[in-house]
Amino acid sequence: MAVQTVHTTSASDESGTGTVDLGPAAALSCRECGERFALGPIFACESCFGPLEVAYDLPDDGPDALKKRIAEGPDNIWRYAPLLPVPADVAAHPSTNPGFTKLVRADNLARELGITGELHVKDDSGNPTHSFKDRVVAIAVEAARAFGFTTLSCSSTGNLAGAVGAAAARAGFRSCVFIPHDLEQGKVVMAAVYGGELVGIEGNYDDVNRFCSELIGDPLGEGWGFVNVNLRPYYGEGSKTLAYEICEQLGWRLPDQIVIPIASGSQLTKIDKGLRELVKLGLVEDRPYKIFGAQAEGCSPVSTAFKAGHDVVRPQKPNTIAKSLAIGNPADGPYVLDIARRTGGAVEDVNDEQVVDAIKLLARTEGIFAETAGGVTVGVTRKLIEDGRLDPALTTVVLNTGDGLKTLDAVSPTTGPTATIRPSLDAFRAAGLAS
Amino acid sequence: MAVQTVHTTSASDESGTGTVDLGPAAALSCRECGERFALGPIFACESCFGPLEVAYDLPDDGPDALKKRIAEGPDNIWRYAPLLPVPADVAAHPSTNPGFTKLVRADNLARELGITGELHVKDDSGNPTHSFKDRVVAIAVEAARAFGFTTLSCSSTGNLAGAVGAAAARAGFRSCVFIPHDLEQGKVVMAAVYGGELVGIEGNYDDVNRFCSELIGDPLGEGWGFVNVNLRPYYGEGSKTLAYEICEQLGWRLPDQIVIPIASGSQLTKIDKGLRELVKLGLVEDRPYKIFGAQAEGCSPVSTAFKAGHDVVRPQKPNTIAKSLAIGNPADGPYVLDIARRTGGAVEDVNDEQVVDAIKLLARTEGIFAETAGGVTVGVTRKLIEDGRLDPALTTVVLNTGDGLKTLDAVSPTTGPTATIRPSLDAFRAAGLAS
Ligand SMILES: [Zn+2]
Ligand SMILES: [Zn+2]
Repeated sequence: MAVQTVHTTSASDESGTGTVDLGPAAALSCRECGERFALGPIFACESCFGPLEVAYDLPDDGPDALKKRIAEGPDNIWRYAPLLPVPADVAAHPSTNPGFTKLVRADNLARELGITGELHVKDDSGNPTHSFKDRVVAIAVEAARAFGFTTLSCSSTGNLAGAVGAAAARAGFRSCVFIPHDLEQGKVVMAAVYGGELVGIEGNYDDVNRFCSELIGDPLGEGWGFVNVNLRPYYGEGSKTLAYEICEQLGWRLPDQIVIPIASGSQLTKIDKGLRELVKLGLVEDRPYKIFGAQAEGCSPVSTAFKAGHDVVRPQKPNTIAKSLAIGNPADGPYVLDIARRTGGAVEDVNDEQVVDAIKLLARTEGIFAETAGGVTVGVTRKLIEDGRLDPALTTVVLNTGDGLKTLDAVSPTTGPTATIRPSLDAFRAAGLAS
Repeated sequence: MAVQTVHTTSASDESGTGTVDLGPAAALSCRECGERFALGPIFACESCFGPLEVAYDLPDDGPDALKKRIAEGPDNIWRYAPLLPVPADVAAHPSTNPGFTKLVRADNLARELGITGELHVKDDSGNPTHSFKDRVVAIAVEAARAFGFTTLSCSSTGNLAGAVGAAAARAGFRSCVFIPHDLEQGKVVMAAVYGGELVGIEGNYDDVNRFCSELIGDPLGEGWGFVNVNLRPYYGEGSKTLAYEICEQLGWRLPDQIVIPIASGSQLTKIDKGLRELVKLGLVEDRPYKIFGAQAEGCSPVSTAFKAGHDVVRPQKPNTIAKSLAIGNPADGPYVLDIARRTGGAVEDVNDEQVVDAIKLLARTEGIFAETAGGVTVGVTRKLIEDGRLDPALTTVVLNTGDGLKTLDAVSPTTGPTATIRPSLDAFRAAGLAS
């Protein structure tokens, strides 16, 4: 991919991006009109306001050499540095070093679901702060470093705040994270414990987001990298590593079917981008794969649009226990629809009861305690198998992007002791639990 | 180590242990009198009631060949199968596959503590259920399989219940776990979500333990493997993998100093055992290392004995926030005293306030949110540096054996937002947080 005419922006000029080294990242390009911009802390096209994404000069030393470079890399996302917007020496930078989480062969779950082919769970609860957010934040940190930012920030209702706090602490950045003032205590602790500034905003998550947008445009926010706003094009690329890892862990093989949760939709679009890059680079065979998106019924704008055959996504007011997916107006919704249709996949949703059932199903079959988002993907997988849209004979990968410890409330009302007894063998005998 | 005369027991006869394949495990031997017994589900010496431990016929194909076998193994504890009581094909068995957690180079923490040499944190929060218990349980599962048990059990107040539940679910065992009836809801959920039987016992943890001992001797408990009772000799060996990983991750090098939490003391003794095995096998250079034990002041029977110069450990009634270390009568206490004295280390304790400070220190310097046990080791490390018993110029490894998400209550009273403001730039300016 050659670099074409590049427009510079005032933002990138200020940061001196002429000398920015983000490895193979060559420019930002508009996903709508294709216009290209120099690498910088910008996120919207000057011409059409479309979202910007990273364009690459990918390595051309052939698939075997590239596989060897990757295999010799560290056991984290930096093994894929040649395919990411990060400098070549990134692994030497202080980082939480996320990624290379387990791809769990899920034979027990497959049996219960009637899947006869290979079923795998990509379990991102193994990341440093136990969600996939560590991946995207780690990439944003490198962009922040390249652009000379000294404070890392974000708006968050949970997972992201912890990931930013931890990454900033480790990498030596100041952090200042904004949350709604009325979050549950557990989430507040996770956001605050890493020692950065934590600001409660009197308002809901939308108010927090609006405030952050104001701050970015104000001198008060100078030197601040908002991982999911002005660093978003880089941040999003972190999700490509899920695609790379899945294929490498399958022995450099594409899965036939992959089930991905949808919040903003960014993760799903970047996994598709990652898979297409691997095909293009010759690291995997070029053959069809199907991408399935999973939502909770209580926040299902994309699956609603998919089922109605619409190209646009109508915003919804979220009402679901799957709070990490509760984005009522998902920015990448239309791209998700494109990908699901292009690959022959689908977008489906499950209700909260099905989410809880699926969390428990995954726990009792594979010993993986998933966040509600994992209940959504497993629940949707079950639904798609039942109605024949997932082929049970093929290789399927289901994502679990977070950790059940962070969403205990989802299962606690229906999860408890089988029995409570006095400490005596008679009482135990009476409970009928001896094998 | 050749197998000497071996006494068989009724327990091992019943299980037909003549044909038990637990890889290099050759026998059980009494840690007190040295008497040897055939491999079986027994845990106390028939002659002297001393604790039994696994004796091995370790591989003799030389250090280079062994290092190569290990390097070619999977990224989990099964890479060390040649040194563990597990069959050679263990990696093909369904398991949560714990281990090979990150050894984090902790330069930020080192600076704060005045350590000028290498400081590393072995972070076992990266295990499948986020504590080191996954290691010991995984080994117990293989013993349970070898002895024909069909139900996995334990008494627990937290981490262990989750580890047993997850491992049993994944490996296809029934599980039945016993807990005090009044545990916090979060711990109950973790113990129950994997779908095994969970029994609340009306009583405290001691009552639960007494009940389990009765059950083992009763026909009701036939076919039951209690990971920390009748499978304890195997279970304990899982902690050796911490020693193996630390040395391999240091480039097959012994650390000079290692700081380990003490609950029963088993983990510390097994880490020492693992280090000595590596020396004996020639995988690391034979040179001195110092082992330091860490306790919470509110449950410090071993450090109290160490400071008093005693060989015996006087039981205490625990009263500390470090509940995963709150064993008032630690079975391996005397062995811990031996090891600390023999290696030139020490046993020290810190109070609850110092534990909380240390949790926060580790979080804000390295982005690692530790369980209270991790606060204990980091706090003790700080104390030992301050009074000159840890050499700041040497290579030090500090263990974090669990996850802060499981002990939120320890930090939540003192961890919260820096400020709470209206969503306006004026309010933010007034808060004085702009960089
Ligand atoms: Zn455009
Ligand atoms: Zn004995």
